[in-house]
Amino acid sequence: MAAAPKFEGWLGKDAESVKGKMEWGPYEPKKWTEDDVDIEISHCGVCGSDLHTLRSGWSPTPYPCVVGHEIVGKAVRVGKNVSHIKVGDRVGVGAQARSCLQPDCAECSAHKESYCAREMIATYGSVYPNGEGKSYGGYADYNRTNGHFVVAIPEALASEDAAPMLCGGITVYSPLKMNGCGPGKTVGVVGVGGLGHFAVLFAKALGADRVVGISRKADKRADALQLGCDEYIATDEDQGWDKKHQRSLDLVVCTVSSAKMPLTGYLGLLRTHGTFIQVGAPDSGEMPPINAFTLIGSGVKVGGSAIGSASSEIPEMLQLAADKKIKPWIQPVDMKDANKTVVDMEDGKARYRYVLVNSNYGKH
Amino acid sequence: MAAAPKFEGWLGKDAESVKGKMEWGPYEPKKWTEDDVDIEISHCGVCGSDLHTLRSGWSPTPYPCVVGHEIVGKAVRVGKNVSHIKVGDRVGVGAQARSCLQPDCAECSAHKESYCAREMIATYGSVYPNGEGKSYGGYADYNRTNGHFVVAIPEALASEDAAPMLCGGITVYSPLKMNGCGPGKTVGVVGVGGLGHFAVLFAKALGADRVVGISRKADKRADALQLGCDEYIATDEDQGWDKKHQRSLDLVVCTVSSAKMPLTGYLGLLRTHGTFIQVGAPDSGEMPPINAFTLIGSGVKVGGSAIGSASSEIPEMLQLAADKKIKPWIQPVDMKDANKTVVDMEDGKARYRYVLVNSNYGKH
Repeated sequence: MAAAPKFEGWLGKDAESVKGKMEWGPYEPKKWTEDDVDIEISHCGVCGSDLHTLRSGWSPTPYPCVVGHEIVGKAVRVGKNVSHIKVGDRVGVGAQARSCLQPDCAECSAHKESYCAREMIATYGSVYPNGEGKSYGGYADYNRTNGHFVVAIPEALASEDAAPMLCGGITVYSPLKMNGCGPGKTVGVVGVGGLGHFAVLFAKALGADRVVGISRKADKRADALQLGCDEYIATDEDQGWDKKHQRSLDLVVCTVSSAKMPLTGYLGLLRTHGTFIQVGAPDSGEMPPINAFTLIGSGVKVGGSAIGSASSEIPEMLQLAADKKIKPWIQPVDMKDANKTVVDMEDGKARYRYVLVNSNYGKH
Repeated sequence: MAAAPKFEGWLGKDAESVKGKMEWGPYEPKKWTEDDVDIEISHCGVCGSDLHTLRSGWSPTPYPCVVGHEIVGKAVRVGKNVSHIKVGDRVGVGAQARSCLQPDCAECSAHKESYCAREMIATYGSVYPNGEGKSYGGYADYNRTNGHFVVAIPEALASEDAAPMLCGGITVYSPLKMNGCGPGKTVGVVGVGGLGHFAVLFAKALGADRVVGISRKADKRADALQLGCDEYIATDEDQGWDKKHQRSLDLVVCTVSSAKMPLTGYLGLLRTHGTFIQVGAPDSGEMPPINAFTLIGSGVKVGGSAIGSASSEIPEMLQLAADKKIKPWIQPVDMKDANKTVVDMEDGKARYRYVLVNSNYGKH
């Protein structure tokens, strides 16, 4: 069995770290157990959640924190209780590092680990129970995560492409799949950003008849169409968009997060019994008000979705991506430049996902 | 062909009519076409919508108006384009009198007539296009409705039991059926009133494992259990009900309508990927705010539902009621006493549905 590697990474030490002030240094990973896998990180996507957490946007972050939950690398140490991964495998970790995993848990026993109500350990910024330590993410040389949440990467998929699928991709793949995206369906994607661009790619890969990109401004139109959208709506600029496109979509996945978004207009785009799934989470979670008549008048539903299952949906998504040769729009950057990358991400420059490449180990 | 009958009924002439000031008198029904059926009314349920409409609660009512959309009676004149009903049949009409019924309508061609966006003629208080007149409801001797929306009543079902199913029943049956109520499921019903009591009866008839009645006060507990509930929650009185029962329900049908209802608490009762369907419509449609994290955290959905299809769901519901010998809790009253009954209904005295019996024609 390999010895524990030396854990070093980009440490956020306070809320200022989001301004490009993370500091490289050593840290103590969670206590090793035979359920865990240590991964030599080659790639890590840069997710909006990383920024939220660095700035304590959702709740106070237990600094120091190494963010990053779109991790790909090589398994270098595999606990003896982990059967589906062996040392040397190319593996990935998404946004979840552990749940209760008990057979009597309705969620964990049904491949719904991301909704486990008993234990929800995020890949970074969580404190394990029983003094096991904290979770640290992928802006680092190594990561230690419970093997149940470590997935094999299909050979046909490049590491830099697979990495951002592990949170950005699965967050939209799961609601698309669960809500019937496929042949015969027309799907809307609100927000053409990191998540939204994956939603377009996956909706097409799942066989949707038509995919409609929806954003405030017209400036994403060309990208949206190139990504595969059949149509594009710029809600700030296309006069009468809500009337023109009303009742035209079976499913909408909403990746934006604003209490001011035109939610009633979006819901009006749904066909009878259509579904609107919110995956973007504003800091406060505040959403625009919903009128009962909007829901009743066309029998529509508004729901939410949280990442996806590492034991079922993530492997399925990765295989689909490999089979359909999905090529996300990513921008590889050296992990040395993580601070600049975080600032660029905050400034909205990603088109559409930065992927940190660990120059010590990465091959891209 | 029979001559047109003489149409007389309880006319609401202004918003004061809801205070027991309807006046019996003659009125001109919609113009006869060969698509229509004239019904000699024997029974008509008293629905909350009747009161909303009498007082112009949703929108200005085109007085004079005869309310009542839970109509049972005998077909006395059947247009030659109507094939499924013949003169003498015992038939019913619910809350909808016409939709576009065109083959190119996504809704009408899929048994979703109640969501037709082109034409929505309510059984009363609607103005037909092209000068065809207005629609008048069932607090009357006769009703004239498009045959597509006239359903046969199964022989095993008493008229007084069938009548209130045609709006109160179908409004809850449709979302129960559509959202998987059946064996293996636990279903919550918010509000134990006219609609809620039907929701309990139908949820049990559809085979739900457990049905939980949910209301503010404890005073409906005995009724709820007698109706078939396995459990009862009084949200104003049971301390910590939201924690105690969290994640215990697969589906909730909400029949109450208040901007102050504890919606976040109700949503917390849902299991992962559970569904909450609003069918009660407050006058303004205002609902309590919904936080994105509530939806995302357990992947739940909040939807709405509007009555049900006269061409598929209503006949199916009536047959289920006949087969399972469902016995709603109704209070027959003489149609002569419609004014007193409306006032009693407004005062919350119904346990759980008044049914007006037309003493000229009714046999009960």
